[in-house]
Amino acid sequence: MRSIDLNCDMGESFGLWRLGNDEAIMPHITSANIACGAHAGDPSVMAQTVRLAQAHGVAIGAHPGYPDLQGFGRRPFRLSRDEVVSMLLYQLGALWGVARQFGAELHHVKPHGALYNSAAVDRELAAAIAQAVHTFSPALILYCLPGSEMEMAGAHRGLNMACEGFVDRAYEPSGLLVDRREAGAVYDDTQRAANQGVQLANGQVTCRDGSILNLQIDTLCIHGDTPRAVEFAQATNESLRRSGFRVEAVSNGRQK
Amino acid sequence: MRSIDLNCDMGESFGLWRLGNDEAIMPHITSANIACGAHAGDPSVMAQTVRLAQAHGVAIGAHPGYPDLQGFGRRPFRLSRDEVVSMLLYQLGALWGVARQFGAELHHVKPHGALYNSAAVDRELAAAIAQAVHTFSPALILYCLPGSEMEMAGAHRGLNMACEGFVDRAYEPSGLLVDRREAGAVYDDTQRAANQGVQLANGQVTCRDGSILNLQIDTLCIHGDTPRAVEFAQATNESLRRSGFRVEAVSNGRQK
Amino acid sequence: MRSIDLNCDMGESFGLWRLGNDEAIMPHITSANIACGAHAGDPSVMAQTVRLAQAHGVAIGAHPGYPDLQGFGRRPFRLSRDEVVSMLLYQLGALWGVARQFGAELHHVKPHGALYNSAAVDRELAAAIAQAVHTFSPALILYCLPGSEMEMAGAHRGLNMACEGFVDRAYEPSGLLVDRREAGAVYDDTQRAANQGVQLANGQVTCRDGSILNLQIDTLCIHGDTPRAVEFAQATNESLRRSGFRVEAVSNGRQK
Amino acid sequence: MRSIDLNCDMGESFGLWRLGNDEAIMPHITSANIACGAHAGDPSVMAQTVRLAQAHGVAIGAHPGYPDLQGFGRRPFRLSRDEVVSMLLYQLGALWGVARQFGAELHHVKPHGALYNSAAVDRELAAAIAQAVHTFSPALILYCLPGSEMEMAGAHRGLNMACEGFVDRAYEPSGLLVDRREAGAVYDDTQRAANQGVQLANGQVTCRDGSILNLQIDTLCIHGDTPRAVEFAQATNESLRRSGFRVEAVSNGRQK
Repeated sequence: MRSIDLNCDMGESFGLWRLGNDEAIMPHITSANIACGAHAGDPSVMAQTVRLAQAHGVAIGAHPGYPDLQGFGRRPFRLSRDEVVSMLLYQLGALWGVARQFGAELHHVKPHGALYNSAAVDRELAAAIAQAVHTFSPALILYCLPGSEMEMAGAHRGLNMACEGFVDRAYEPSGLLVDRREAGAVYDDTQRAANQGVQLANGQVTCRDGSILNLQIDTLCIHGDTPRAVEFAQATNESLRRSGFRVEAVSNGRQK
Repeated sequence: MRSIDLNCDMGESFGLWRLGNDEAIMPHITSANIACGAHAGDPSVMAQTVRLAQAHGVAIGAHPGYPDLQGFGRRPFRLSRDEVVSMLLYQLGALWGVARQFGAELHHVKPHGALYNSAAVDRELAAAIAQAVHTFSPALILYCLPGSEMEMAGAHRGLNMACEGFVDRAYEPSGLLVDRREAGAVYDDTQRAANQGVQLANGQVTCRDGSILNLQIDTLCIHGDTPRAVEFAQATNESLRRSGFRVEAVSNGRQK
Repeated sequence: MRSIDLNCDMGESFGLWRLGNDEAIMPHITSANIACGAHAGDPSVMAQTVRLAQAHGVAIGAHPGYPDLQGFGRRPFRLSRDEVVSMLLYQLGALWGVARQFGAELHHVKPHGALYNSAAVDRELAAAIAQAVHTFSPALILYCLPGSEMEMAGAHRGLNMACEGFVDRAYEPSGLLVDRREAGAVYDDTQRAANQGVQLANGQVTCRDGSILNLQIDTLCIHGDTPRAVEFAQATNESLRRSGFRVEAVSNGRQK
Repeated sequence: MRSIDLNCDMGESFGLWRLGNDEAIMPHITSANIACGAHAGDPSVMAQTVRLAQAHGVAIGAHPGYPDLQGFGRRPFRLSRDEVVSMLLYQLGALWGVARQFGAELHHVKPHGALYNSAAVDRELAAAIAQAVHTFSPALILYCLPGSEMEMAGAHRGLNMACEGFVDRAYEPSGLLVDRREAGAVYDDTQRAANQGVQLANGQVTCRDGSILNLQIDTLCIHGDTPRAVEFAQATNESLRRSGFRVEAVSNGRQK
């Protein structure tokens, strides 16, 4: 029986400000990427999110980002390699520290926003991320875009990598996502998202031009800020199970 | 042969701003309290400070504070017990994460500024700090004011506690420090500081009114922001050695 | 024909995080207290809020707070008088600057959260606020709790003061609001809020114990974070008009 | 008698952290670029700096930067035009507000760090800056690199522009500064800096390759973070006077 992971960004509230619908989504996913206080999250939000994930048996991952609350970590930053390594170790350690009050351990790391996007194409940045994750713990799984510089940098370090597919976004034939500002880039139909989830879990995706792309993925991402994120998560989870998948967190034996 | 520890706050620079003279003081102390990014410090400053401490064989401690860069953690904050616990675990974890790139472990925790001062008299806050430190690791040593609520809360948790004396400050007969705004509160004479260090290591201190106070201390604090901090550290270290002390970090077997 | 003002806190979003329902409330109020980037708001949020207020003919006020995004300005800060004055002038100036792109001028100032609450009882803080507002412009109207230290400090400076009543909160016979953690402290019934608004505009309020309190107020506050804030604003506005009031911003001729 | 301005970045301390030597430099300059709380400065530092400038008859300018304390405004940010305009109006207004307690008015604007550098070559960003400055007050003088996009954008808006020369930096024959990481890029010889100041005031500069470049400048910049900044300021000021210049702030009649 094949298994597949469903991941979602979580814990992106800050102070009084709420973002996302963590309580409603958590029951339907298997791994949570938890913001670490740099682009979002604060120690109390992090603690609540770890506890919520633990209560649902969801694997706990770090979701580190650039230190930019106002820009929500979506603005690129120019940092040296040493700065990136220390910044990531800081955030991973912070989440690990907060998680200790629940006896929880970190399972994976998924960089956020501009850090994720830049690391997909910037070899030096990707290497810095892989170095930081490996230094923190070689057992951590690094989530990445298939075919990205980050996948290569992680594999080079000997890290367990998990490649991501996206259930709620249209694909270009190149394997990149259609720019979210274009019409049809973000799905609003629940069944379509669930179907794409199953197709991706089976190793393929139908692109915007109708062509079929082969894509080996280990985890499916649901964007928590999509209006129908809860429905998408639930429907994708159910469709995967009906299609014969075991929906569970990536195990860290799948080294590439 | 009796042993005594010399501690100093370190790593309190931020971004481009420099504070203190860490490079010059580090050779003369045995334990460093490293700011964790909340009241001062950033991931890069923290990394440099851990490396510097390690190069000098200085024990690495966390110096967590209230999240208030502008106020340098010197303004009291009203936080719930849960908020304090998560805030501390966040900062301890962050320093622990940064330290992993040098294979360094945490040795102790010394709360900073308003957090330290409030915890000396606020039982609930002291209990929150002791809980967080114990949760992070029961092996960590908690530095505190002798006779404070923090000492009692830590002992109650079964933590190793280290009581502090201050070489560069005048004492009230009550055992409290003379308010730093009063004349003579902060020493500017190096020999006087060194002498007080030796006296404190021997279990006593001469108060401002000439009376002698008994005070059992495990570690001597040098304030890094005193103009003569480097001289004070060097002279105190030498005087202690000449007086027959082994100057070394507090070992964590001294549970109270 | 008597006139009464309806005010509401606005522009308390930050970056990606949304708070309140400014678009829906703005049509029903006559003065907006706009956050100035310290406890909430950023330059872009401020610009959008000024434009929105202007589009609805709503008077633009500054809503300065303590510089504490994580605590949303609800945690008391210990600041010197000089620090308070500069902090307020900074925030007032910042909103005034942002408003220049729309040719808008500032009409009033209402301190936020812990700053408002502390200034109600702290004479020194109240005097600092009155000084800052007067320095910025003697024409600004300062919103305050009736009978508070802030009312007295403002009157002493010769400022135009506007006393506030609250439509959505239960009153103690002392004139203070019932603690929001107590049952019944925050209304959830729209008609009750609207009725209290009319009663307050007429100079009285029925307290929680049934007693009637006389209270001269110039402006009615709707809390934007109450679940039914939009309904409350609309219903209060309509009830006031039906009761013969002209609902309009406080004019600055009413010096006390 | 020809006149020339000497400007320096000022007020770049933050909270407890000190930067620069404002007290010692202020007597030797004629216009101060005061940080506005985004890359450096806080309301109290700004107030002290305005007062210090006023005491020395130094013209008060805003020195706005990207909102990035940790990076000191030296990291480029990707912002929309609207975001830049609101960000600048916010900072200009904030300084203007703080300055009101001393009855001081703003004289000029000099963007800081990455904002200045990017605006020299980015037409859209330069236009946003010129728009914001003009909106705030058409009487403000905008300091810029000669020949930059910012000079053109400001002139296009009808702003008074002041072109800068640098006394403490080596020039490329292109008119750009030699990269500060190269040997000889930053002068350490006081007389050399003073001589270059006089030469620039006379409309020329000798480049690193010995060629002479014509450069019409209105103001000379001293970098406050150069080790010998105080000496440079004093020597340049004296040399200019001895060479027959009136050293004074740019007057705002020199529209280009």
